[in-house]
Amino acid sequence: MVSQVKLFDTTLRDGTQGEGISLSVDDKLKIAAKLDQLGIHYIEGGWPGSNPKDMNFFERVKDLKLKHSVVTAFGSTRRPGVTAEKDPNLNRIIESGAEAAAIFGKTWDFHVTEALQTTLEENVSMIYDSVRFLKEKGLEVIFDAEHFFDGYKHNPEYAIKTIVAAENAGADCVALCDTNGGSLPTEIADIITEVKKQVTIDVGIHCHNDGELAVANTLEAVKAGAVHIQGTTNGYGERCGNANLISIIPNLQLKMGIPCVANEQLQQLTEVSKYIHELANQTPPNGQPFTGKSAFAHKGGMHVSAVLKHPETYEHIPPEKIGNERRVLVSELSGQSNLLFKAEELGISLDKGSPAIKETIETIKEMEHKGYQYEAAEASFELLIRNGLGESHDYFEFEHFNIITHKERENGFKSEAVVKMKIQGQTVMTAAEGNGPVNALDYALRKAIGEYYPLVHEMYLSDYKVRVLDEAEATASTVRVLIESSDGQETWSTIGVSPNVIEASWHALVDSIRYYFMKHSDRLTAVEPVAAMPEASVKNH
Amino acid sequence: MVSQVKLFDTTLRDGTQGEGISLSVDDKLKIAAKLDQLGIHYIEGGWPGSNPKDMNFFERVKDLKLKHSVVTAFGSTRRPGVTAEKDPNLNRIIESGAEAAAIFGKTWDFHVTEALQTTLEENVSMIYDSVRFLKEKGLEVIFDAEHFFDGYKHNPEYAIKTIVAAENAGADCVALCDTNGGSLPTEIADIITEVKKQVTIDVGIHCHNDGELAVANTLEAVKAGAVHIQGTTNGYGERCGNANLISIIPNLQLKMGIPCVANEQLQQLTEVSKYIHELANQTPPNGQPFTGKSAFAHKGGMHVSAVLKHPETYEHIPPEKIGNERRVLVSELSGQSNLLFKAEELGISLDKGSPAIKETIETIKEMEHKGYQYEAAEASFELLIRNGLGESHDYFEFEHFNIITHKERENGFKSEAVVKMKIQGQTVMTAAEGNGPVNALDYALRKAIGEYYPLVHEMYLSDYKVRVLDEAEATASTVRVLIESSDGQETWSTIGVSPNVIEASWHALVDSIRYYFMKHSDRLTAVEPVAAMPEASVKNH
Repeated sequence: MVSQVKLFDTTLRDGTQGEGISLSVDDKLKIAAKLDQLGIHYIEGGWPGSNPKDMNFFERVKDLKLKHSVVTAFGSTRRPGVTAEKDPNLNRIIESGAEAAAIFGKTWDFHVTEALQTTLEENVSMIYDSVRFLKEKGLEVIFDAEHFFDGYKHNPEYAIKTIVAAENAGADCVALCDTNGGSLPTEIADIITEVKKQVTIDVGIHCHNDGELAVANTLEAVKAGAVHIQGTTNGYGERCGNANLISIIPNLQLKMGIPCVANEQLQQLTEVSKYIHELANQTPPNGQPFTGKSAFAHKGGMHVSAVLKHPETYEHIPPEKIGNERRVLVSELSGQSNLLFKAEELGISLDKGSPAIKETIETIKEMEHKGYQYEAAEASFELLIRNGLGESHDYFEFEHFNIITHKERENGFKSEAVVKMKIQGQTVMTAAEGNGPVNALDYALRKAIGEYYPLVHEMYLSDYKVRVLDEAEATASTVRVLIESSDGQETWSTIGVSPNVIEASWHALVDSIRYYFMKHSDRLTAVEPVAAMPEASVKNH
Repeated sequence: MVSQVKLFDTTLRDGTQGEGISLSVDDKLKIAAKLDQLGIHYIEGGWPGSNPKDMNFFERVKDLKLKHSVVTAFGSTRRPGVTAEKDPNLNRIIESGAEAAAIFGKTWDFHVTEALQTTLEENVSMIYDSVRFLKEKGLEVIFDAEHFFDGYKHNPEYAIKTIVAAENAGADCVALCDTNGGSLPTEIADIITEVKKQVTIDVGIHCHNDGELAVANTLEAVKAGAVHIQGTTNGYGERCGNANLISIIPNLQLKMGIPCVANEQLQQLTEVSKYIHELANQTPPNGQPFTGKSAFAHKGGMHVSAVLKHPETYEHIPPEKIGNERRVLVSELSGQSNLLFKAEELGISLDKGSPAIKETIETIKEMEHKGYQYEAAEASFELLIRNGLGESHDYFEFEHFNIITHKERENGFKSEAVVKMKIQGQTVMTAAEGNGPVNALDYALRKAIGEYYPLVHEMYLSDYKVRVLDEAEATASTVRVLIESSDGQETWSTIGVSPNVIEASWHALVDSIRYYFMKHSDRLTAVEPVAAMPEASVKNH
């Protein structure tokens, strides 16, 4: 059995092939930073030869100065009939500045002649030349052996020939891909055992979940000697997804005793899983193994007292090792320790057992029942705790607002918001136009507050996400809005929930400003506005 | 390797332990009929000793006169210190009239003394007595060996002793349960190999998915000699769910060559999976192995022409064998072959190379550049193709609308929409209130159109999703709205993109109605409204 493995995350490349997964460059950078924190060894950032968005990621990721992860660029072997030196795709990989490259090539003879429409010999040369070229340029090179298991089943000799070519050209690793996702665990193990007799460089594994076997196939590959593990966070990917690293890591580390990341990093697993679900705008499945909300949920009765006394006899692993938590569905026992843990994280000291804590737990439960979820909205959570402790961060009082959205056949849309508030004892009324109703509201709100607190102009909204919670109700259903704000240095997230998307946005907007003011109270000096009661420029339709 | 297995579905019992899964007796009966049709050998209907709802199921299921499935009642071994004959729980099983019983008992010594609080000897007697009693009453008896794998790891001798007691009492099968769901495939295989040396009756397997390994564990169990397979449809169940029979069946039958059901029954697999998702009110995951909507979805130009020529080299099984189908995703569509394939699927015949096709491809590219993405909005896509072919589906003309959203400190939100349109040459103006701006617009729009086309009242919105495309711009960014509509039988999806969430929703709403009218043009009869120009009830704030 191997004693150490390298984790290769391709969420940003293969993961985005999943239906409905779409990530902006900003999202990708945030995910890269998170994966680095988790201790992932390689992050495949994209295919620089295929689109400018991916190239932009490689330019900007350098500024993150990742500590653990090697940024890897994806691409294919050179095209038939050109030299590697002249292949634009390979040159884009070099231009990307990535330290490592993962290039894929054909290993199934049928695909060479049919899909690629070249000779078997030329394909082997394409692999050799491409690897050699990238190695000469100083990159670490992983050869992704596409369709390897199916290819091996049809023509083992040729499949081996392709990976030996990669080895001879200096590849650091050959990652065997179950591209169609249909192999069984024992097939994977048997074929890797054979491959290990033929190549001496690191062998890697890349599985897909078409048979609901991707995690098991990956574990079997490791048992057979694979040391480089490709997968995606939460198993995103084309068709049924890629092998889910979020399940593979704890299986390897906690059950098979093969170290992947530091213990402290493993404790971030649940947070990372949820964070990336949020960025990808995917509803985290309650039943997701290891990190799901229900993964350590216990139901009623005798079972509950037993599980509290001897959790190891009812849980396959201790949830705290991966940052998840035990939930007892019928009792309220898990709330307090949870809150204490969270508060400690935020640097707030709480008295265990104080009435303030109990009240805050009640408030949180009530809010969660309404659809609030604080995982991705820590600023709102901190405000809620501090409110519970008696701190007040009400810098302004709301009176009313009115938003009008108008569309005519010939003209575009217009949204206007009128806001009336009380700040420093004075009434402020103002109006603003925007791209849409929420945008107009945001502008009007900040315009009003800015008259007294210019600090509000130093922050801006950097991200806005909407999720419908109760989809059965369609447009009448409850929505959850997550807002991320920034002042160019720090970012913070807030949440609002309501059946009305504008009300939900309003809550999140207000929380965001209150949080910023609280954090920078030293710079929060109120100024006297030019006019104490400014003229509201309300337009009529 | 075994040559034949029996499938034991516990969706109606263990499946309902899943968070959010709740089935009425009617639902349960419908599911039982469907599972019978699929050829499942045993259907565990519930725990007659635990609640009257389950007892009611057993009474009513007799009327279904199932053809393939043996209805099975669940229960526990007798309580400590009473005879089996006097145990109420065992008597409820007999009263249920089920032909088979699955009774669970402890096999892990620690659980006997800690949770059950009895002696190891008494526990063995409880198993023996209970099995013997049910056998004497003429039932087929399956002994569910709870926590067997963990128990075996701690005290193999005692674990074996419990199942030998069941065998000696006449049990027909001993089902080994990985109750905590944490075992690895090789552990399962190794332990079953040992068990097979100790008992001669059928050995069964019951896995949970806590390690994302339940399907693989089940397949390994079969390889080691298990012939009775417990699981749930779609993997429903406590925590991370039970082993998913929907994935196990095709893996066994199509890959391992172990017959489970007839080929014609296997072709119903996708339908059964979706039907039960609907009854359980669960959104079918697109990426569900085998039966998901994305399970055989293909992206990209070159790839598509290849997959159409040689599907077996890109698909792990032929989708038609399990009643699923190949899908070519239209997103990022560049090649003509994608469009032609898609059009063919929709029953539209296109001339290859005609100017209309080229123009339509250009339009699609333009729309995709704006943020439209048709992979999840096939109805909008079809309208777009048909428009490109010169078909017109403009049943109404839009003049203007106005939406007002108002909030006061003390009161909740109010959203009102005023819509003005031209239908059948007449001007219609009307207004409606809603839960939020989009909801109000939806109501007003349908109210206006419904005056001329009552058909619009037969459809409704069933799902509404919002996604921000360019998050760097936050609330001023472009949003994509996906709407799913239904008429209770069919569902269809439409899309709208705009910087304004209301405009985006508007486009998707209008497409949805146009699509429905197009599909049901035979029933689209215009009526004369009560008033040609209805009074608009516009409220003022």
